Amino acid sequence: MEKTLQELADYVGGTVAGDPNTIINGIMGIDEATEGHITFVANEKYIKKMNHTKASAVIVSPKLINAKKNLLVCNNPYLAFARIVELLMFKKPVYVKGIDSATSIANTAKIGKDVSIQAYVTIGENACIGDRVVVFPGVFIGENCTIGDDAVLHANVVIYPDTVIGRRVTIHSNTVIGSSGFGYAPDGQSYYKIPQAGNTVIEDDVDIGANTTINRATLGQTIIRRGTKIDSQVVISHNVEIGEDSVIVSQVGIAGTAKIGKHVTLAGGVGIIGHITVGDNVTVGGHSGVAQDLPGNGTYLGTPALPIQKMRRCYVIIEKLPEMKEHMKSLDKRLKQLEEKWKNSD
Amino acid sequence: MEKTLQELADYVGGTVAGDPNTIINGIMGIDEATEGHITFVANEKYIKKMNHTKASAVIVSPKLINAKKNLLVCNNPYLAFARIVELLMFKKPVYVKGIDSATSIANTAKIGKDVSIQAYVTIGENACIGDRVVVFPGVFIGENCTIGDDAVLHANVVIYPDTVIGRRVTIHSNTVIGSSGFGYAPDGQSYYKIPQAGNTVIEDDVDIGANTTINRATLGQTIIRRGTKIDSQVVISHNVEIGEDSVIVSQVGIAGTAKIGKHVTLAGGVGIIGHITVGDNVTVGGHSGVAQDLPGNGTYLGTPALPIQKMRRCYVIIEKLPEMKEHMKSLDKRLKQLEEKWKNSD
Amino acid sequence: MEKTLQELADYVGGTVAGDPNTIINGIMGIDEATEGHITFVANEKYIKKMNHTKASAVIVSPKLINAKKNLLVCNNPYLAFARIVELLMFKKPVYVKGIDSATSIANTAKIGKDVSIQAYVTIGENACIGDRVVVFPGVFIGENCTIGDDAVLHANVVIYPDTVIGRRVTIHSNTVIGSSGFGYAPDGQSYYKIPQAGNTVIEDDVDIGANTTINRATLGQTIIRRGTKIDSQVVISHNVEIGEDSVIVSQVGIAGTAKIGKHVTLAGGVGIIGHITVGDNVTVGGHSGVAQDLPGNGTYLGTPALPIQKMRRCYVIIEKLPEMKEHMKSLDKRLKQLEEKWKNSD
Repeated sequence: MEKTLQELADYVGGTVAGDPNTIINGIMGIDEATEGHITFVANEKYIKKMNHTKASAVIVSPKLINAKKNLLVCNNPYLAFARIVELLMFKKPVYVKGIDSATSIANTAKIGKDVSIQAYVTIGENACIGDRVVVFPGVFIGENCTIGDDAVLHANVVIYPDTVIGRRVTIHSNTVIGSSGFGYAPDGQSYYKIPQAGNTVIEDDVDIGANTTINRATLGQTIIRRGTKIDSQVVISHNVEIGEDSVIVSQVGIAGTAKIGKHVTLAGGVGIIGHITVGDNVTVGGHSGVAQDLPGNGTYLGTPALPIQKMRRCYVIIEKLPEMKEHMKSLDKRLKQLEEKWKNSD
Repeated sequence: MEKTLQELADYVGGTVAGDPNTIINGIMGIDEATEGHITFVANEKYIKKMNHTKASAVIVSPKLINAKKNLLVCNNPYLAFARIVELLMFKKPVYVKGIDSATSIANTAKIGKDVSIQAYVTIGENACIGDRVVVFPGVFIGENCTIGDDAVLHANVVIYPDTVIGRRVTIHSNTVIGSSGFGYAPDGQSYYKIPQAGNTVIEDDVDIGANTTINRATLGQTIIRRGTKIDSQVVISHNVEIGEDSVIVSQVGIAGTAKIGKHVTLAGGVGIIGHITVGDNVTVGGHSGVAQDLPGNGTYLGTPALPIQKMRRCYVIIEKLPEMKEHMKSLDKRLKQLEEKWKNSD
Repeated sequence: MEKTLQELADYVGGTVAGDPNTIINGIMGIDEATEGHITFVANEKYIKKMNHTKASAVIVSPKLINAKKNLLVCNNPYLAFARIVELLMFKKPVYVKGIDSATSIANTAKIGKDVSIQAYVTIGENACIGDRVVVFPGVFIGENCTIGDDAVLHANVVIYPDTVIGRRVTIHSNTVIGSSGFGYAPDGQSYYKIPQAGNTVIEDDVDIGANTTINRATLGQTIIRRGTKIDSQVVISHNVEIGEDSVIVSQVGIAGTAKIGKHVTLAGGVGIIGHITVGDNVTVGGHSGVAQDLPGNGTYLGTPALPIQKMRRCYVIIEKLPEMKEHMKSLDKRLKQLEEKWKNSD
């Protein structure tokens, strides 16, 4: 597909600085882009690269406007990038409509209109599959599950019984939703399994990556609220609640009954201990361990997690601990010399 | 189901304080419980909530007996909770008996009595499936595997050849048992794969969560001993041995040939380096990194892991390192002033 | 199988010290070996055990030659070990040739010679499967994928559309290749999915463990270069590039657009932040968090990662922080006493 720079600017609601008739036939990263490509600079860190890119045009924010390139200027360059990728580069997948004959679907299951249910799919008793739902091969949907309209379940996803999946939810391959929570009561010698009698609810517009695990609740519900995006290989334990529009990056682990607010970002590998609350609009930096409540609207880092500015100061000092120790030794020595002198002067 | 408080006390071996005829029709968490519910307080941290819960009764230990609520008093409230959840709230799953026609089972495989082998299951040559085993859709069981009586393999579990699974073992979806260990001999330029000629043995009464990986041994066996409970997305490498009744929480990683004792608890995200020994009754706190042998009967925390009391003191000081550095600067300055004075007085 | 020690020495290009006619019928670890076994000592740490092993012979490097055991002496004992395991202990798997009737293969897919395509496999439109490829049950291969000659895809692996898999690649169960990258543009209120229009390329001779996730690129390619070995439950994000002959141990997470060099080793649980570069021949110790570029040829440890010698010194001091704080208090006290004395002497 080919568009002029002006057409792209109109498409994303921006303006052109430079030649509006520049022909654009693709979008690429600033290093890989060549003639005919548009690229983007969302981060000021990459401004220098603007002068060296071979791209025919660059998407920028208004404050980066003084470059010599053809520019598409808009307030949210990253969003414009996303929309132009979709327009120029993305081939929207087309799913074969219908139900494959090699499927195992209970008689009591209700299947919506215009679905794509592919080979080797199992759907249990009383499950309810919405309209236009796409179910890739090898997916298992247990009894009494509800799958909302326009949801997409990629190959080999497993949805345990009683799970509720909202509309426009995408779940990537080998992810498991609604598996048993990990709860055991020690009986003195061994462990007694606490039956996990609750379920899992995934609200509308949630995305979930590959190989992620979201357990059902012991009692009540594990809930992922509307619009939250979850990456790959995340573990979300029984009775966790995650608020709306949060972002949970890969390999995060959230222990039982933790409550995560809305607009929260947990970066890769963060661990959240059970039974705590993370407030709205919190960001936690990668690989951090959160062992107590975090009030809202802050950014935290480290194990145990501290406010990020504080933790960064600590990291700088930790790196200098050997020097600090030497300094302390020299202080001790100088002090001793003074003490000696004083003693001798008595 | 409905029970009187007295009936529940009899069921779990406890006593009633308050009205024994209180009708109980469900069990819920202390915040969610309403009239007709029993709830529980296992942790003294939640005592205050007892006065505000809407529950009709509370399960407590003898030391919390002075509340104004109807109480079910017993020595192990958490165990009583588990058993009452099972009694009142848990619908024990019923599995369709028999072998689905859409399965691929080798002629030489032996299948026990009263099994439930569901659609799209593959069972390899000479595999031996015990009585009452439940195999959900999409499970793969390799050649020469043994699956003990009453085991349950959830959808899309993969059991590599030669694996031995004990009785009453539950394995959750997309978990992989017996995959190749990660062993390579550098040959100067590249890597030579060390064939993984051993197998994996899961003893009786082990539970394993979803998306977990337990590799086979290079030589000999990777062994998970009786009664151990393993959570989701755990990695257990070749030749690891885990003792009886241990608890391995989600995202733990145990490197090759490590030996973990019995009654050990490894909290979420703990990493254990290869070739070390963790003694019996050890607990390691979440997100810790264990890089050397840990003697038995201790609790450890941090990376590298230290005895927990010590590590907690270190954490407190780390948080104060900026102040400590300032303090050191001020000591230096005061010392310099004294040195100057001394020099001037000479 | 039985071999003389001399035959084994010839096989691996080593020499015998002791009785060349010693009969060897197996290989085992130094603790487990009994009569008739050969064992090995690759690490000087285990030299002491050589005198206590019941093995009939030991593989050693030339510098360990002064033991009283029958020895197979060679320059790379670990490689010799690998090759003898393969010779004596490893039963090379034999795959049933052909295409199972219970498969779902698009008419436009091209299938090579002598393949083994087992039950419940799905292969999409225009996919191209090389010669002697083995595809275990439940595998999904999306449209337009290429699978190189002699590749092995274990049960329930998922390969998303457009993925390129090289020759002799092994992928273990439940691993997902080519799933959507985790990219969202905030639109002020919620998140706009950045369509992931690139693909994933796995070059020749790469091994990938179980339950690993490798995402496709937003634009361009996510690339794993020739000979790299990846363990279980690793996450590799969109647009990552990993050089040749690197080793990525279990539970590593590599964020988007990071570039990892060749001959790199990332130990278990390492996290790499996005958009950074890790140079050739770098080793990063287990559980470390890398938040900035690492120059080549170094070994790093900790969070944030530092050169290992430096980090180890820091760890030693961290452990002594409580004593250090006490020391500082005592310095302060002694200083105060001197200051008092000075004041009083004025």
